[in-house]
Amino acid sequence: MTDKDEFVYLDFDTIFNFMKDVFIGMGVPEEDAATCADVLIESDKRGIDSHGCSRLFMYYVRLQRKQQLPVTKLTIVKETPGTVRINANNGMGQVAAKKAMQMAIDKAKKVGIGMAIVENSNHYGIAGYYALMATKQDCIGMTGTNARPSIAPTWSVEPMLGTNPFTFGVPTDWDFPWIADHATSITQRGKIETYARLNKDAVKGWVIDENGNAATDSKKILLDMLDFKAALTPLGGIGEELGGHKGYNYATFVEIMSSCFTQANMLQACLGIGKNGEFVPYNLGHFFIAMDPSAFCDINEFKKKTGDLLRQLAAAKKQPGANHVYVAGEKEFLAFEERKKSGVPISKVTQKQFLKIRHELKLEKYDFPFDVDFTKEDATGW
Amino acid sequence: MTDKDEFVYLDFDTIFNFMKDVFIGMGVPEEDAATCADVLIESDKRGIDSHGCSRLFMYYVRLQRKQQLPVTKLTIVKETPGTVRINANNGMGQVAAKKAMQMAIDKAKKVGIGMAIVENSNHYGIAGYYALMATKQDCIGMTGTNARPSIAPTWSVEPMLGTNPFTFGVPTDWDFPWIADHATSITQRGKIETYARLNKDAVKGWVIDENGNAATDSKKILLDMLDFKAALTPLGGIGEELGGHKGYNYATFVEIMSSCFTQANMLQACLGIGKNGEFVPYNLGHFFIAMDPSAFCDINEFKKKTGDLLRQLAAAKKQPGANHVYVAGEKEFLAFEERKKSGVPISKVTQKQFLKIRHELKLEKYDFPFDVDFTKEDATGW
Repeated sequence: MTDKDEFVYLDFDTIFNFMKDVFIGMGVPEEDAATCADVLIESDKRGIDSHGCSRLFMYYVRLQRKQQLPVTKLTIVKETPGTVRINANNGMGQVAAKKAMQMAIDKAKKVGIGMAIVENSNHYGIAGYYALMATKQDCIGMTGTNARPSIAPTWSVEPMLGTNPFTFGVPTDWDFPWIADHATSITQRGKIETYARLNKDAVKGWVIDENGNAATDSKKILLDMLDFKAALTPLGGIGEELGGHKGYNYATFVEIMSSCFTQANMLQACLGIGKNGEFVPYNLGHFFIAMDPSAFCDINEFKKKTGDLLRQLAAAKKQPGANHVYVAGEKEFLAFEERKKSGVPISKVTQKQFLKIRHELKLEKYDFPFDVDFTKEDATGW
Repeated sequence: MTDKDEFVYLDFDTIFNFMKDVFIGMGVPEEDAATCADVLIESDKRGIDSHGCSRLFMYYVRLQRKQQLPVTKLTIVKETPGTVRINANNGMGQVAAKKAMQMAIDKAKKVGIGMAIVENSNHYGIAGYYALMATKQDCIGMTGTNARPSIAPTWSVEPMLGTNPFTFGVPTDWDFPWIADHATSITQRGKIETYARLNKDAVKGWVIDENGNAATDSKKILLDMLDFKAALTPLGGIGEELGGHKGYNYATFVEIMSSCFTQANMLQACLGIGKNGEFVPYNLGHFFIAMDPSAFCDINEFKKKTGDLLRQLAAAKKQPGANHVYVAGEKEFLAFEERKKSGVPISKVTQKQFLKIRHELKLEKYDFPFDVDFTKEDATGW
């Protein structure tokens, strides 16, 4: 079996509408439900399958067990002309994050640069969504969030830091903005899950085991990670030789920015599990910075120069065997162009989750082109 | 011969005073000369031998051939409450950078966050110096600069991007601030020079050759890099498998931030060499961002929480064989404590350069405890 055999394709609108209705069904107000669905579908559109509709069930379960609240009441804790601190009061991460980035952008339009910090929040989807918000408004966007502990610091084997994305977006004169949206670990759990499904070994360097060695048995890694007996490595890998300490530092910077300005949880407190094993709010933190290039120069000159920079990179002498030198955001743009036609591949696991949710929320008006038995198997898959 | 055999130790004051007098001898005004010497000695104090007094000769030569100007006239091109664009008019990078970071800090103290961009500048020394300026004033500092082309983009073998440091500093309640100061490449030329001197092979993954393979012959790499036949790899290494595209993106973000807001050079234009092989100004760009934690919370609570975060990281389960889990800035702090007593190791190459400059600038009042023949050999070494 290849990975392809298990996929059925759905168009953007069907997925978006279904997800929106699911969020509404869980008590999220309509406008907020649209925001949550929009953040998720953006990930699917961009070909980032780990953070799109395959995560719907995660939010569904968290809302179901009241670990996070459907209604997002935002409180402004402190504000200056350039900064704002927002308490999300355990609401929807996407709703809080969208509001926060918009406030950062509005401040950048006034004083050149703006920054927003969110506390008491939840998983906010792809970081790239908020960087994109900035580029659509002719600003540079920067964002990051902490997350459940996965990365072991250099010199350690214990999962301490989240995969902590450090994400940037820059407007250009290309057909798409430059968006670098990635974890500060080399890879993430979702990729190892895919490898396990295909009976492939994980790449040496992605994961460190409790003895300090590179672990490669994908299925064992997934189990060991749950027991904190294996951890993701930071960008740069195990040890200092290939710069692992740099990735560790970037992950740490994102953790500091996400948690230290506020009462947000940090490091291993971001598990969402209390002392007696009960589910508790995640209390994640996020940060958002927007910069307005027009505070420094003409915006069109900025976009032209950024575009020129990317054109020069794309024209660099190719590595033998490489067809193209990509710039950040290009692969995602190509995925979008492709998926506009093909739709989004929905895996067997996600199919089961969709059917289970459809059944439980009585959303039978969605006539999906798949019919798998969702009753016999635990549909969780993350 | 080990690397140690060639070193003679000098105390901080002697090196600082000598460097200051050298800059004055080259026409740099006294206060600016002190700034330049202070940036360089800070690197020596922190154990970063690649960017301290071993670079004095580089600035000396550039000033001698009038590639950069000793008197730094700063022009404010554009200013808003949160941002400023500064033209360094081809003066000393350290002087422009110090002024720029101070303006970013001052703006952060007023509107919560501040940002400064410098164009038409030169090599500014260790990025960490400016991050430290922010932490000393209870702010978070972020800075980066572009530089001569060294890193090949993923999918390419051509040096396009500088080693582009992406550097952060955060105040803490520890004895030292958290300072992550490093290039977005895995390593840098200076380290390969050290390996070549010791007849050691470079680590596989540090360098890509023109055929797209990992190059390891240190001496050949140094020659090939000059001919653009070898390039440094971004953090994450060759290809995408270990996340090389992430390091490539971080280096690109620093390049964009350093060059695209202004008329600064970018990518291969940062060579300092004109069309006919003549020396021309580097016209580098730098960026500086300062954030004031007190815009979000009590500064002492912030420092305490950051300190707690670092304490938790330091207490993580150690990799077998590791004695300690370091946090960023710790190794540099330990180097400083050590070098306060031992002084700074001065290599044979740097000894020759010091003696040559002493002779040419008639600074014989400096009675160095070494006497090597500086007349017969080309003393360049960077």
